[in-house]
Amino acid sequence: MSTFGTFFKVTTYGESHCKSVGCIVDGVPPGMVLTEDDIQPQMTRRRPGQSKLTTPRDEKDRVEIQSGTEFGITLGTPIGMLVRNQDQRPKDYGGSTMDLFPRPSHADWTYQEKYGVKASSGGGRSSARETIGRVAASAIAEKYLALAHGIEIVAWVSSVGDVHQFPPTAEHPTPSSNPEFLSMINTITRNKVDEFVPLRCPHTDSASKMARKIEEFRDKNDSIGGTVTCVIRNVPSGIGEPCFDKIEAMLAHAMLSIPASKGFEVGSGFGGCEVPGSIHNDPFVLATEQPSDSTPQTGAQRLGLKKPKLTTKTNNSGGIQGGITNGAHIYFRVGFKPPATIGVAQKTATYDGDIDGVLEAKGRHDPCVVPRAVPIVEAMAALVVIDALMAQQAREQTRSLLPPLKHTSSAKQQEVNGV
Amino acid sequence: MSTFGTFFKVTTYGESHCKSVGCIVDGVPPGMVLTEDDIQPQMTRRRPGQSKLTTPRDEKDRVEIQSGTEFGITLGTPIGMLVRNQDQRPKDYGGSTMDLFPRPSHADWTYQEKYGVKASSGGGRSSARETIGRVAASAIAEKYLALAHGIEIVAWVSSVGDVHQFPPTAEHPTPSSNPEFLSMINTITRNKVDEFVPLRCPHTDSASKMARKIEEFRDKNDSIGGTVTCVIRNVPSGIGEPCFDKIEAMLAHAMLSIPASKGFEVGSGFGGCEVPGSIHNDPFVLATEQPSDSTPQTGAQRLGLKKPKLTTKTNNSGGIQGGITNGAHIYFRVGFKPPATIGVAQKTATYDGDIDGVLEAKGRHDPCVVPRAVPIVEAMAALVVIDALMAQQAREQTRSLLPPLKHTSSAKQQEVNGV
Amino acid sequence: MSTFGTFFKVTTYGESHCKSVGCIVDGVPPGMVLTEDDIQPQMTRRRPGQSKLTTPRDEKDRVEIQSGTEFGITLGTPIGMLVRNQDQRPKDYGGSTMDLFPRPSHADWTYQEKYGVKASSGGGRSSARETIGRVAASAIAEKYLALAHGIEIVAWVSSVGDVHQFPPTAEHPTPSSNPEFLSMINTITRNKVDEFVPLRCPHTDSASKMARKIEEFRDKNDSIGGTVTCVIRNVPSGIGEPCFDKIEAMLAHAMLSIPASKGFEVGSGFGGCEVPGSIHNDPFVLATEQPSDSTPQTGAQRLGLKKPKLTTKTNNSGGIQGGITNGAHIYFRVGFKPPATIGVAQKTATYDGDIDGVLEAKGRHDPCVVPRAVPIVEAMAALVVIDALMAQQAREQTRSLLPPLKHTSSAKQQEVNGV
Amino acid sequence: MSTFGTFFKVTTYGESHCKSVGCIVDGVPPGMVLTEDDIQPQMTRRRPGQSKLTTPRDEKDRVEIQSGTEFGITLGTPIGMLVRNQDQRPKDYGGSTMDLFPRPSHADWTYQEKYGVKASSGGGRSSARETIGRVAASAIAEKYLALAHGIEIVAWVSSVGDVHQFPPTAEHPTPSSNPEFLSMINTITRNKVDEFVPLRCPHTDSASKMARKIEEFRDKNDSIGGTVTCVIRNVPSGIGEPCFDKIEAMLAHAMLSIPASKGFEVGSGFGGCEVPGSIHNDPFVLATEQPSDSTPQTGAQRLGLKKPKLTTKTNNSGGIQGGITNGAHIYFRVGFKPPATIGVAQKTATYDGDIDGVLEAKGRHDPCVVPRAVPIVEAMAALVVIDALMAQQAREQTRSLLPPLKHTSSAKQQEVNGV
Repeated sequence: MSTFGTFFKVTTYGESHCKSVGCIVDGVPPGMVLTEDDIQPQMTRRRPGQSKLTTPRDEKDRVEIQSGTEFGITLGTPIGMLVRNQDQRPKDYGGSTMDLFPRPSHADWTYQEKYGVKASSGGGRSSARETIGRVAASAIAEKYLALAHGIEIVAWVSSVGDVHQFPPTAEHPTPSSNPEFLSMINTITRNKVDEFVPLRCPHTDSASKMARKIEEFRDKNDSIGGTVTCVIRNVPSGIGEPCFDKIEAMLAHAMLSIPASKGFEVGSGFGGCEVPGSIHNDPFVLATEQPSDSTPQTGAQRLGLKKPKLTTKTNNSGGIQGGITNGAHIYFRVGFKPPATIGVAQKTATYDGDIDGVLEAKGRHDPCVVPRAVPIVEAMAALVVIDALMAQQAREQTRSLLPPLKHTSSAKQQEVNGV
Repeated sequence: MSTFGTFFKVTTYGESHCKSVGCIVDGVPPGMVLTEDDIQPQMTRRRPGQSKLTTPRDEKDRVEIQSGTEFGITLGTPIGMLVRNQDQRPKDYGGSTMDLFPRPSHADWTYQEKYGVKASSGGGRSSARETIGRVAASAIAEKYLALAHGIEIVAWVSSVGDVHQFPPTAEHPTPSSNPEFLSMINTITRNKVDEFVPLRCPHTDSASKMARKIEEFRDKNDSIGGTVTCVIRNVPSGIGEPCFDKIEAMLAHAMLSIPASKGFEVGSGFGGCEVPGSIHNDPFVLATEQPSDSTPQTGAQRLGLKKPKLTTKTNNSGGIQGGITNGAHIYFRVGFKPPATIGVAQKTATYDGDIDGVLEAKGRHDPCVVPRAVPIVEAMAALVVIDALMAQQAREQTRSLLPPLKHTSSAKQQEVNGV
Repeated sequence: MSTFGTFFKVTTYGESHCKSVGCIVDGVPPGMVLTEDDIQPQMTRRRPGQSKLTTPRDEKDRVEIQSGTEFGITLGTPIGMLVRNQDQRPKDYGGSTMDLFPRPSHADWTYQEKYGVKASSGGGRSSARETIGRVAASAIAEKYLALAHGIEIVAWVSSVGDVHQFPPTAEHPTPSSNPEFLSMINTITRNKVDEFVPLRCPHTDSASKMARKIEEFRDKNDSIGGTVTCVIRNVPSGIGEPCFDKIEAMLAHAMLSIPASKGFEVGSGFGGCEVPGSIHNDPFVLATEQPSDSTPQTGAQRLGLKKPKLTTKTNNSGGIQGGITNGAHIYFRVGFKPPATIGVAQKTATYDGDIDGVLEAKGRHDPCVVPRAVPIVEAMAALVVIDALMAQQAREQTRSLLPPLKHTSSAKQQEVNGV
Repeated sequence: MSTFGTFFKVTTYGESHCKSVGCIVDGVPPGMVLTEDDIQPQMTRRRPGQSKLTTPRDEKDRVEIQSGTEFGITLGTPIGMLVRNQDQRPKDYGGSTMDLFPRPSHADWTYQEKYGVKASSGGGRSSARETIGRVAASAIAEKYLALAHGIEIVAWVSSVGDVHQFPPTAEHPTPSSNPEFLSMINTITRNKVDEFVPLRCPHTDSASKMARKIEEFRDKNDSIGGTVTCVIRNVPSGIGEPCFDKIEAMLAHAMLSIPASKGFEVGSGFGGCEVPGSIHNDPFVLATEQPSDSTPQTGAQRLGLKKPKLTTKTNNSGGIQGGITNGAHIYFRVGFKPPATIGVAQKTATYDGDIDGVLEAKGRHDPCVVPRAVPIVEAMAALVVIDALMAQQAREQTRSLLPPLKHTSSAKQQEVNGV
């Protein structure tokens, strides 16, 4: 369905050619400063056709808050948001190619099989425009996560076609053991990634190879896929709701709900499945004490919430053990297929079963969607994290009202009772 | 939380050392023949320590139906099921190693961070024993899926460590273009897979290489991961609930909720992200008419439900386009990390932050969990499919009660109105 | 939260002074003819300040469909709808009475206790304006229910203060045994009710007494409550999801979510608790065969769905037994308290705890909200019925794909197997 | 369906003649002392056939915790519980009366209409035995509510037939203005109520009248209904989730899900709909400061959670305004119909439509279920309160991590920003 989340609940609507696309966000914390200015930047990053950051500001896709705030403060009530569609007339192709052929590997045909109605845009809600509501909702989540815990979510393009920023090697079958990768997830920022617009791969050499790869396919009227890697920093330990709603399960759900995604791997991922346990296990070490900050930046610091005593020496787990965060960086990778709309002629059957058809898409098409997927990956990650965080905060607050467990003289019992 | 599904809703309970583990399944179709004999086989396949099929029948893990059936017929009310734990006493290790050290890459530490209580089994619900309820529930789902649509779900071990049944090659960067793989997903059965117990890789040569790989790590008191591939056949077209609950999103959620899983890819997967759109796109062709069967085997045949007119020539999509099934085989792959419990000594901190500790696990440990993951992957796949199927069947039944849309003289309008 | 329903899922947003109020409806059956014209009439009936039906058409509260339809046909995707607020500026009363006093029996104070933020409109979402989204969503549900099953939902004012249309008597402690009442629920229509606007009590004598009662309180700057009775006709048997989501439980939930509601009773209600079982029980009788209709009006008729063989002679059950509909008319009554905003001076404390305050509301206030509650009661009833109907239709469609149960020679077994 | 609650989620299973009845409770706070001894007392109170408290302890319906605790401490994981059925064989009446007739006003017939299968017990889950899981789950909730906030929930029989403890009078059209009633809800305890077992009306005179009323109907082989009133004390202000999940809406949902219930009214209820606003409104007054307690009894006291500054002088609102608690006592009344199973012969149709049948139930039947409904009303109230409480505690904890809103020099702005 069109709702994601239990505590921070996002419901979206909208197709390509209707009046507007938008969402309702229920469960927004009350008392947070929030205006359209907090939301628009990610909306703008999501826009297609971006080139350098110096591009004059794109005035399209302006988000309008409908409810849930007053005088720039959230009320705690649902926040409705919408973005008007520029072209609000459903297309009526009148027997054109689009009407005759379900586009191969598009959602045209499956939408018709499912709903029995053919939307003018073909795949209805499979349109990338559907993701506007997600990004708008997520901007609210991201603001909260940053204010409360200093949580940072940064995604970037890690491969285009067979050009990988961190290709698997004998030494590093997975980037999770690659020092260069580990250093990068410590420091990468959105600003840094956006310096590499339109590619959004923050590595000069890889970026130029990727750009050539995309040009190569563009020139052939063909398309190519790639992957996006994402890191989430400063998530508290204890987040994630086993057994079914483990944090990696929710991330996988979220990522595979993004149009054109084909795969998800967390931490060491598929590569880690080839590494012996003796190397793959992440031993525990003492967490470095962070220098006390005279001006606390986050709510957690202000409230004096304790950081965990331990952390792990390596991080093949990607910050998650048993479906629950351990306080280390969460990172994962998402694969996106080559765009289905290509200029090359395709021999394919019509809706009516005419098998001698040839479909030729006209105009210029985006040969690679991966750079545009970056803010959407970040958005879905934020929605997962805030929902799991609120679930755990409910548990902690609820638990704090219970009598402390009595420590008995038995050392064993103490262990059992916890601390 | 511990509930999965909306229409076919499974709620599980149980840790390693409590009285029993089990589940409640709500939404089971009424009027289906069902006894423990329908459920026990998958329970038994799930049991650890299996060798050849000639092994005398394992009488442990007997499932007991508590409610929801009478005279072997489902009532439509919730079905409670349980399996008694053999060892029902929580462990009290009394200052033993287990009490002092959170095991690296286990859930011991994160469970304590989350719940503030240390369960005797360490990671509480992260125990593999938790999956019993899933498998029991899923056996009901599988029976329905087979009776109603002839749906078959078969998983097998496709890699152990770096031994792959279908390693990526220049010609076939993803198995989805490999004829041998495609032939296999057409025909593979559970019986065939079980002929290869304990490995469950139904390919003699790969299986023996995998066996040697596991022995190698077992002999070093080390462990190794691997992958499971799963195919789902005969799912009707139109299944899956965009935008957030696309069928691949639900499958990813389900698979990443299995203990020790690290990655998920559907259809051509990560390999497909390196293939040009012109090759990756699946053109539409006429579906082969199936010979009319004088004795219909499935409910869908008895009711005369129409098969879709079209299918795809290739199947890089893995049977899914835009989050909705197209009637072709659904297939996906799941990665599992090496087991965290190993005999090799590990330098790691204690709960108290003593950093000079060395943890040495005693006894024999399972060096590779992948073969045992096979029935759990099948189980979670069945839970996803039945839930999405029921959602779509609700839609179809609801729609069938609406007046048929009027076809106007305008050809365009007909297209719009659907057929 | 702000979502109602599982299958036909309505999420609303909006306060009094934000840009718009609206909703997203997910789960709308695809292929249904739907435009704003289907929705506006109930929106208009919901408007305050209505007098006779001859009133020139009120052009306020125009609903705008944002998504989910094309060329006037539902796509099966979420339908976004909104109504612009006329006065979009949050009020800043600047130390006025409204800022100082929480209004007695209003939500001003509890909203502040809950959210810690004071909305300019006081009770935020407790505003009657919040119900706009409900009514818009429900108009879609009602259209479906009428087309598919001929379901009719009609509510009317059954009491104002102590003026009751059917006061309890020794003979009829509950209207459920009163022939006049039973005849009325067979025949009452919305048109008939609206002939009695502004009172919406379709009984001339009662209506005039009620009008006088309201005038009496209006003249005293005071207010008075009342009740609304609602009948739902033509709901198929078998609707309702025990044990927790019995149809009467969902109706009670829905009705008590309407602002100012204080009570709910179904069928014979509280009065029926005083009637002996021998009289209260509804004996089964053969259902009258309905004359075959040459032009089927509903989807159920077109598909030849069978009507139940039995019905009940009396209907103290209000069409529901064990939480499941039996095909007879469902009817229930909802109580509404007197409006809290009154002109009479009230001695009450300020937010700051100043206890010597006197609050005097200015302007004219609605002395009785019950007539305006009528379309909202109908709306919530429709949302309950369509959700439960879709749940049951999912079950029936799912069940229909199972093999028919074999009838054995044993008569007993046949009974058990059902028919 | 069979799940209630979002945060404290209860799923139940079981019919009359299956192996066991029980539940899974997900979301239980970790670190709470809990054993069967905390649960059994309410299970025993729920048992039928109780007479005086001096009755030897009933050893039937022993609850067994299956999971989720270790060494008597909750783990935070799901708690499975079950109670074995004494008679586990489904009945096969073999053409007896029970097989031929759907019992009037029972669920026999509607269950068959819904599920198409006839359970041996007739109405399947409509059996009172289904409520065992609810009561077991609720005992956990109640323990938490008492420890954390000192919340007390007490229900009692307030009427049998036309014998009312507080009949409406001209002076007190609703008990909410009756000083005797208001005094009672301040002080009534479960122990006091149980002194009046089997009637559970803690008012000697009314109790004896009610006893005579029940005897009168028992002697006629007939039955009679009645009402239960329930008070919930010490619920913090701010609980309840508008707009759809107002606390009274959830209570109404919960109460109407209890077998045989027919109505719900909160606070002044239906009687309050006849009272002028000027009298019905509850003016705000300063809350009495409670004497500081040297030994804090509740978690809220230990944590120093503030009590609200204001309370209301009267309490016609029943502790709820705008769907949110205001800290005053919550009270409500639930109506139960006369039991459908009576010894008196009933002329009614058979399943097959034979209309000349006469159904005569044999044996002794319970002539009034109201006293037995008392612990079930309490149980459902506890489930509602804990779920809403956890929702609000999640909000508060989440909000506490936000930066405090800046107070500007503008007094108006301060109001807007909240305090």
